[in-house]
Amino acid sequence: MKEFALNKIQLTDEFWQGYQELVRKETIPYQYQVLNDEIDVDVQAEREDPNLPAGKSHALANFRIAAGQMEGEHFGWFFQDSDVYKWIESAGYSLLNTSDPQLEKTVDEVIDLVAAAQEADGYLNTFFQLTRPKLKYRQLYFSHELYCAGHLVEAAIAYDQATGKDKLLTVAEKNIANICTYFGRESGKIQGADGHQEIELALVRLYEYTGKQTYLTFADFFLEVRGEDPAFYEKEILKNQADGLSDETPRVDLTYLQAYDQPKKQHEAKGHAVRMLYMASGMAKVAQHTQDQALIDACEAIWEDIACKKMYVTGGVGSTVHGEAFVGPYDLPNDTMYCETCAAIALVQFSFELFKLTNEPKYLATMERALYNSVLSGAAIDGKHFFYVNPLEVNPQRDQENPGKGHVKAQRPDWLGCACCPPNFARMVASLQRLVYTCDQEKLYVNLFVASRLEEPDQFTFEQTGGFPFTEDLTIRYQGIPKTLIIHKPNGLSKFQIDSEHEWQETNEAIIFEAVENVTANIRFEQPLQILRANPQVIQAINQVALQRGPFVYCIEEADNGQALWRCRIDPQSLEATFSKEDTLLPITLRLAIKGYQSEEWSGTTLYEERAETVIPRTWQLIPYHLWGNRGIGEMRVWLPLVGKK
Amino acid sequence: MKEFALNKIQLTDEFWQGYQELVRKETIPYQYQVLNDEIDVDVQAEREDPNLPAGKSHALANFRIAAGQMEGEHFGWFFQDSDVYKWIESAGYSLLNTSDPQLEKTVDEVIDLVAAAQEADGYLNTFFQLTRPKLKYRQLYFSHELYCAGHLVEAAIAYDQATGKDKLLTVAEKNIANICTYFGRESGKIQGADGHQEIELALVRLYEYTGKQTYLTFADFFLEVRGEDPAFYEKEILKNQADGLSDETPRVDLTYLQAYDQPKKQHEAKGHAVRMLYMASGMAKVAQHTQDQALIDACEAIWEDIACKKMYVTGGVGSTVHGEAFVGPYDLPNDTMYCETCAAIALVQFSFELFKLTNEPKYLATMERALYNSVLSGAAIDGKHFFYVNPLEVNPQRDQENPGKGHVKAQRPDWLGCACCPPNFARMVASLQRLVYTCDQEKLYVNLFVASRLEEPDQFTFEQTGGFPFTEDLTIRYQGIPKTLIIHKPNGLSKFQIDSEHEWQETNEAIIFEAVENVTANIRFEQPLQILRANPQVIQAINQVALQRGPFVYCIEEADNGQALWRCRIDPQSLEATFSKEDTLLPITLRLAIKGYQSEEWSGTTLYEERAETVIPRTWQLIPYHLWGNRGIGEMRVWLPLVGKK
Repeated sequence: MKEFALNKIQLTDEFWQGYQELVRKETIPYQYQVLNDEIDVDVQAEREDPNLPAGKSHALANFRIAAGQMEGEHFGWFFQDSDVYKWIESAGYSLLNTSDPQLEKTVDEVIDLVAAAQEADGYLNTFFQLTRPKLKYRQLYFSHELYCAGHLVEAAIAYDQATGKDKLLTVAEKNIANICTYFGRESGKIQGADGHQEIELALVRLYEYTGKQTYLTFADFFLEVRGEDPAFYEKEILKNQADGLSDETPRVDLTYLQAYDQPKKQHEAKGHAVRMLYMASGMAKVAQHTQDQALIDACEAIWEDIACKKMYVTGGVGSTVHGEAFVGPYDLPNDTMYCETCAAIALVQFSFELFKLTNEPKYLATMERALYNSVLSGAAIDGKHFFYVNPLEVNPQRDQENPGKGHVKAQRPDWLGCACCPPNFARMVASLQRLVYTCDQEKLYVNLFVASRLEEPDQFTFEQTGGFPFTEDLTIRYQGIPKTLIIHKPNGLSKFQIDSEHEWQETNEAIIFEAVENVTANIRFEQPLQILRANPQVIQAINQVALQRGPFVYCIEEADNGQALWRCRIDPQSLEATFSKEDTLLPITLRLAIKGYQSEEWSGTTLYEERAETVIPRTWQLIPYHLWGNRGIGEMRVWLPLVGKK
Repeated sequence: MKEFALNKIQLTDEFWQGYQELVRKETIPYQYQVLNDEIDVDVQAEREDPNLPAGKSHALANFRIAAGQMEGEHFGWFFQDSDVYKWIESAGYSLLNTSDPQLEKTVDEVIDLVAAAQEADGYLNTFFQLTRPKLKYRQLYFSHELYCAGHLVEAAIAYDQATGKDKLLTVAEKNIANICTYFGRESGKIQGADGHQEIELALVRLYEYTGKQTYLTFADFFLEVRGEDPAFYEKEILKNQADGLSDETPRVDLTYLQAYDQPKKQHEAKGHAVRMLYMASGMAKVAQHTQDQALIDACEAIWEDIACKKMYVTGGVGSTVHGEAFVGPYDLPNDTMYCETCAAIALVQFSFELFKLTNEPKYLATMERALYNSVLSGAAIDGKHFFYVNPLEVNPQRDQENPGKGHVKAQRPDWLGCACCPPNFARMVASLQRLVYTCDQEKLYVNLFVASRLEEPDQFTFEQTGGFPFTEDLTIRYQGIPKTLIIHKPNGLSKFQIDSEHEWQETNEAIIFEAVENVTANIRFEQPLQILRANPQVIQAINQVALQRGPFVYCIEEADNGQALWRCRIDPQSLEATFSKEDTLLPITLRLAIKGYQSEEWSGTTLYEERAETVIPRTWQLIPYHLWGNRGIGEMRVWLPLVGKK
C-alpha cells in the first residue's frame, strides 16, 4: 500500500483546513520568529530543573555561528538544529498547500544558512561543530547527530516536493553521504546507531523519494546494528576516555534508548516513548520494502503492547516523566503521566505505517484516536502556545505544591527549551492529507472522513464532502479506472445508511464498493455519545468513565464548571447528553452537557469517617479534550467517577 | 500535663509486650551487628540512586576511626552517628524494661567509644571530624551536627535512667556546652539553626531531666533563630567560599527545611516530613514550659493541617518522595507516597506532646492511628527487616517497571543506607509505656488501652488488664490519693458497658471517674468493623473504602487473595465481616474475611470499550495493615473500590 504525493490531495474540510490555516498564518511565522530570537517569549524548560536550557531558542543563531556569519557560542540542546529542520518541513508542506512567496523567500534564506553551516565533507551538526568537534560521531549515546540528519532529510524532501528547489536535498544527501562514510559494516567503520532514532524512517523516505537503494540499505543497517552489541555505547565512552577526548562517565540506560537488543527482537514498548515510536515507524517502513518477517512481527507486537496495554484514551503514550517513558502494562496514571505531543504524533505515524504494511483497519482506529485528541491538544487555538505534556487530570493548585508534577503544566507555554513538539505539531497538521488516502494496485483506501479531493491524473478522481465531525453525513464521488473503494469507518460511528446506485458491502470497519468506475454515494450515520470504560486492569480508571463522540474524547474544565471537578459523579443510566455547536468561546466546538451529580462536601474537618457519600444532581459541561487549557489556568479531567454505592 | 518516668510503668500487654520482646531479643542485637559491620546483610539505598550510600553501615567504624582506634575513612551519611545514638537509646529503654548484663556491657563499650571519639572541647561528629574539620558548624544547611547532638542527648538520658551510669550524659552535656559556645545571640556567635531539627526537642528533654534552665533557653533560641534571616544558609555558603573552605554552591530549599520563616509564624505542614514533625514536637515541648501563645497557635495549626488534610488513613505522612515531603492539602496518592516510618513516629511524638500541652483528646486519636498502623509497619515480624517507605498500594510487577516508584519496596530490606528508621522504630517500641499514662496535679490520664501497671510510690497504683485489641474488655484498678481518672476511648470502639461500684461519666472521648481513691471497673465494649471513606477532596480515594477495626486499618494482600487485587469490589450494604484470631501465618493476627465481589476480566484485548463492569461474588481476606509484606513480595492495597454503577 502506498501514499499519494501530497499535492494530489486538496483539503476542503472545515475542521482540518481550519487547522492548516492556523498553522500557515500563525504557527509557522511565529515559530520562525522564535527560532530567530526575534520576539520576546517565555521559553520554559519542559520540566522543573534549573539545568535544562530555557529562556531563548537560539536555533538559527547556532547555524549563523557555525557558518561563520556571527560570533558567539552554541546555546540549547544538542538537537536544537532539528527545530529548524522541522520548521522547514512544515513550511514546505504549507507552501505545497498554499503558495506564499514571502514565506518561500524566508525558507530559502534559512536553507542558504543551513548550507553555509555544512562542512566541506558534508558533516552538519552545529552543537558538535561548535562545542566538541573532536567528538563527532563519537558520543552516539546522546549526540542526536543522525537524528538531526533524519529531520534534515524529511525537511529536504518536503521542500523539494513543494517548490522543486533541491538545494536542501543536496545538503541532506551530502550529509547522509558523510554518515555513510563513517558508519557501516566495513572494518574501521562505526557499527552503532544514534541513541535517538529518526534516521531510519527518514532514510526510507529518502529511498522512496530518490529511488536510491543505498538509503534503504542504510536504514536497514541502523535497525540491524542497534542493540547487536549492547556494550557498544559503553565501549564508545571508554574509547573517548582512553583517547583523552572526554572524561564523561555517564550511565547509559539501554532500555531508555531501545538498544538492549536488536529492534527485530523487541516485542514490548519500553523506554523513551518518542524514541520507541520513531524506531518502530522506521521498522514498519523498512519492512514495507523488505517484507522482513521478524521486523513485521516485532512491529505488530510492539503496537499491540501499546494500543492494548499502554495507551491513554486520548491516544497519549508515555506514563512517566522519568525518561519520558513507557512503563509496565495497564499502568496509566492520569495526573503524573508524560503523554508528550511528539509521542502522540509518532503513534499516528507508526499506526499509519503499520496500516500501509498490513491493511488492517485497527491501526487506523488508533491513529485517529491519537490524532484528534492528544496530537491536537499539543497546540493552543491561537497556534502559538504548546504543550509538551498532555495530562488527563489537572488540579493546578495541588499540582503546584507537588514536586512530582513539575512537568505538568495547566497552560501551554509560549515555547519550550526542548522545542521538539511545536514544529512537530506544525508538520503533522500541514501534511494531514497524507493520512487520508492510500492505495494499492486495485484498491483506493479512504482512511479518514476528511472532506477533500484526490486526483490521480489520467487515472481517477475521488471526492468526499461533508461536515464531519460536526455533521453526520458524507458524500463520496469516484470517477476513473476500475477501483475497489475501501471507506474506513471512523471510531464510534454507527447506524450507517448508504444511498447509492451501486452495490456496496458493509463490514464492522468499512464500506466497500467493489471495482467501481463511477460512483456516488450519500452516507449518513450517527455519532452517539460513547460511555467508555477502561480495561479493569487499568487501576487508575476503576469506577470511572470517559465520554467520547465520534473521534473526540471529552473533558470537564474549570472554565465551564467551576473548581473542585473531582466532585463530578456520573450515572450512565440517567445521563442525558445534549450536544451544541458553538463558536463563541472556542472555535468550532461541539460542546456537551450531561446530567450528572456532584458529591457533597463534608461538613467539619474530618479526613476519614464512617459515612456514605451523598450527591446532588447537577449538569456538567464538557468540551473536546484537545481544546482544554485555552481559557486560563484551571482544573481539567477526562475520567469521570461513577456515582458510588451507598 | 506530665509523663511518668518509664520505670514506674510495667507493661503486661500481650500485644505490646510481644513487640518489646521482639525488639529486645531480635532488633537490638541485630542492629548492633549491622552497625558494627559484623554480619553480611543487604544494605539497600532508600531509593534508586547510585549516588546514595549503601552496602554497609560503618557507623561504629566511623567512631573508631575518629577515636584513633582504627585506620580508615568515614563512610555513609553525614548523620550516620545518629544511628548509634538511637541504638543506645533503644538499648537503654530495653534495659530499663528488662535487665540484660550482656547487652549492658556492649552498650558500655559503645559509650566508651563515643566518649573516646569526642574532641577535648566537646565537639563530636565523626563526619566533620574525619572529612572536613574546618567546616564544623559552618554547613548547617546540611550538616546534621546538632541533629546528631540531639540524638546523643536522648540516648544519654535513656541510658542514665536505665542504669544510673552518667558517662554518656557527661559526653552529651559536654557536646551541648560546645554548641552553646558557638551558637547564640551574642555577637560573633552563630545565629542559625541546624537544617534538620531534633536538638530543639532534645534540649527540652535535657532541661526536664537535669533541671538546668540553659537547655530550655537554647531550645527556645533554636526555634527563634530559625528562619529569622531566611538568607542565613545562603550567607553561610558564600562565607565558606570567601574563606576558601568550600566551593559548593548548593541551592538551599528553605521550605524543605522549614526555614522560610520563624517556626512560630508557620501554620502549614510543608517540606521534609520528618524535619517538620521533629520541629513541631520541639515547638510543643518548649510551649509546655513557656506557654508561648504564638508557638501554641502554630503547633495547633500545623497539626490541623496534617491530621485534617495531609495524613493517610494509616497515619502515614509525606505524600511525595521528592524531598520526602508534604505536598498540598488532600493530595494523598497511595502508590507513590513516602510515608516514612520516621515521619509516623514523629507524628506520634508531636501528637503526644500536643496532648500534653492542651489536654485535647483528638491528639490521642491521631497518635493511636499512626502508632498501630504506619509505625508498626516499619518493621517485619522478625524484627530484622525495615521499611523506610510505607505505601498503601503496591503492585510489585508494575512498580518495578515504573521509575517513579523506585522508592516503593514490596518487602522490607535487611537494612538501609539511610538507616534512620530501624533504630527509631526500636526506641519507639522499647519506650512505648511513655505514651500510656500522663498526669497533672489532680488527674491521671489513661491514653491507651495497654495492659500495664503504673506505680507512683507513696501516691497511687493504677492497673489496667485485658486483651485489647484482641478482646473487648478492660479492667481498671486504682488505689491511692484522690485522683480523677480520664480514660481515653481508643478509635472505633463503641457501646461501652461499665461495671463499677463508683460513679462515672461517659463522654464521646473518655470515661471519667472523678476524684476517686479506690476504684475497680470492668469495661466492656464493641469493636465493630468501620467502613471508612475519605473526605471527598481526596481524589485518590474516590469511590473507595478502607476497613478498620479498633486501632487497626486493614489491607488485602496477594498472599491471601492471589494476584490482581485491583479486581476487588466492595458493597458496604452486603459486606459480611468475620474476624478470626490466628497465629499460624503471622503472630497474633486478627484476620478479617468479607463478602465482596471481583470484577471480571475482559475477554479480548481491548483497552477502552463501551460496556458495563461485571462482577462476581467472592470472599476477600484481610490482615491488619502493619503486618503486610511479611510473606514474600506481593500485591497489597488498603483502599478497596466500591461496586460501581452499571
